[in-house]
Amino acid sequence: MNLILLEADALSGNGHVILRGARAEHICSVLKKEAGDEIRIGVIDGPTGTGTIQSSSAGAVALQCKLNSETPARPAVDLLLALPRPKVMKRLWAQLAALGVGRIILTNAWKVEKNYFDTHVLDSEFYRPRLIEGLQQAGDTRLPEVSIHKRFKVLIEDELDELFPDGARLAADPRAAVPVREALGRDRVLVAVGPEGGWTDYEVELLKSHGFRSVGVGRRVLRTDTACVALLAVVHDALPARG
Amino acid sequence: MNLILLEADALSGNGHVILRGARAEHICSVLKKEAGDEIRIGVIDGPTGTGTIQSSSAGAVALQCKLNSETPARPAVDLLLALPRPKVMKRLWAQLAALGVGRIILTNAWKVEKNYFDTHVLDSEFYRPRLIEGLQQAGDTRLPEVSIHKRFKVLIEDELDELFPDGARLAADPRAAVPVREALGRDRVLVAVGPEGGWTDYEVELLKSHGFRSVGVGRRVLRTDTACVALLAVVHDALPARG
Repeated sequence: MNLILLEADALSGNGHVILRGARAEHICSVLKKEAGDEIRIGVIDGPTGTGTIQSSSAGAVALQCKLNSETPARPAVDLLLALPRPKVMKRLWAQLAALGVGRIILTNAWKVEKNYFDTHVLDSEFYRPRLIEGLQQAGDTRLPEVSIHKRFKVLIEDELDELFPDGARLAADPRAAVPVREALGRDRVLVAVGPEGGWTDYEVELLKSHGFRSVGVGRRVLRTDTACVALLAVVHDALPARG
Repeated sequence: MNLILLEADALSGNGHVILRGARAEHICSVLKKEAGDEIRIGVIDGPTGTGTIQSSSAGAVALQCKLNSETPARPAVDLLLALPRPKVMKRLWAQLAALGVGRIILTNAWKVEKNYFDTHVLDSEFYRPRLIEGLQQAGDTRLPEVSIHKRFKVLIEDELDELFPDGARLAADPRAAVPVREALGRDRVLVAVGPEGGWTDYEVELLKSHGFRSVGVGRRVLRTDTACVALLAVVHDALPARG
């Protein structure tokens, strides 16, 4: 962890907080911090800052926190992802949050098996701690917003304009020759990653008719999890540096 | 699988080959191919081509293969990686081969635990099938060369010039401001990824004095597996397109 994230309501008015469980354990055993030491802290969807350890004993660490005035900008990249199988999705949560996504839009597609939706991996009690883990790794505080859509057509035709009103819409396609860099223009970016086996022709057409542009990141066909990480990395690298 | 890879000696002089086991199963059950159909094939470290199914029965598929004249170029990117823990390395093999690396140089470092080297995950009987799996996913035939080094100093001072004689040497560093794109010059690229917790100052200096330049892919600190995939994707994207 490069940052300890606190819930917004965990911090009392005078900046005092007591950590227990895994985080207290991590501070003592892994970071090897003790009374008087400082650690980096942050408030979920809020500012980062510094916590000075007041006392630490088995299982509890008391911190006096001082927050900076600014909250980090929300990552400029959103992800539209055809739901991968639960084993893959399970591993992706923390990686996506670490790489930086503002919003994760999970969708059904023709080649997504229906039973992929019947998994605890999609429960917020499951994925929220993993997203937080990824943020703590990357030193960010902005928790990605997650929505799950079982009807691809309804999502693209009726819901997407509200979820992603403005910006560049890109669809990863190993056959596309346009590099990501050339397809970025306006501020936010939404990247779509299809299921194993790809989108169907119908799905490709629907995406195209709703503003998605095909972009390539090389001609190699990648597994969903590798493709997500690779694409997000390339998009972040291609975006102009921000604040 | 987007390509079925054959061992160089599996193909008889007249282009005939019989596949059994998992690959025969994959062709029949997943690809749903039968006699008369064509599939993409390739020879390890050799050309790709087309295989026409002559017959398929439970457990065996007979192919008549026709190879193209050219062997794909070796990926222009090599990876120097401080050995991650076995669980992470296990998952990385196929991903690295899919993304495209010419050579994988695994090394010890101060923050690598010694027992990470005592794992079957580093046996070629373990990793070769996983590298092949990654190549079959990506449609490539060039098997990455793998070497394992337990002494970082000896590797960097005495062995590296032979393993990577010429090209740009880059070290990923979240604090570095130089983008990958600007650090690429000559043909091949070697990228170094440190252990969880990073290289020590001594290791950073040793890398620097042996031609490594620090490059950034954003200020977010990523886990080793995410960092490898992200960095390789950005480097491949930044390289000029090749043959």
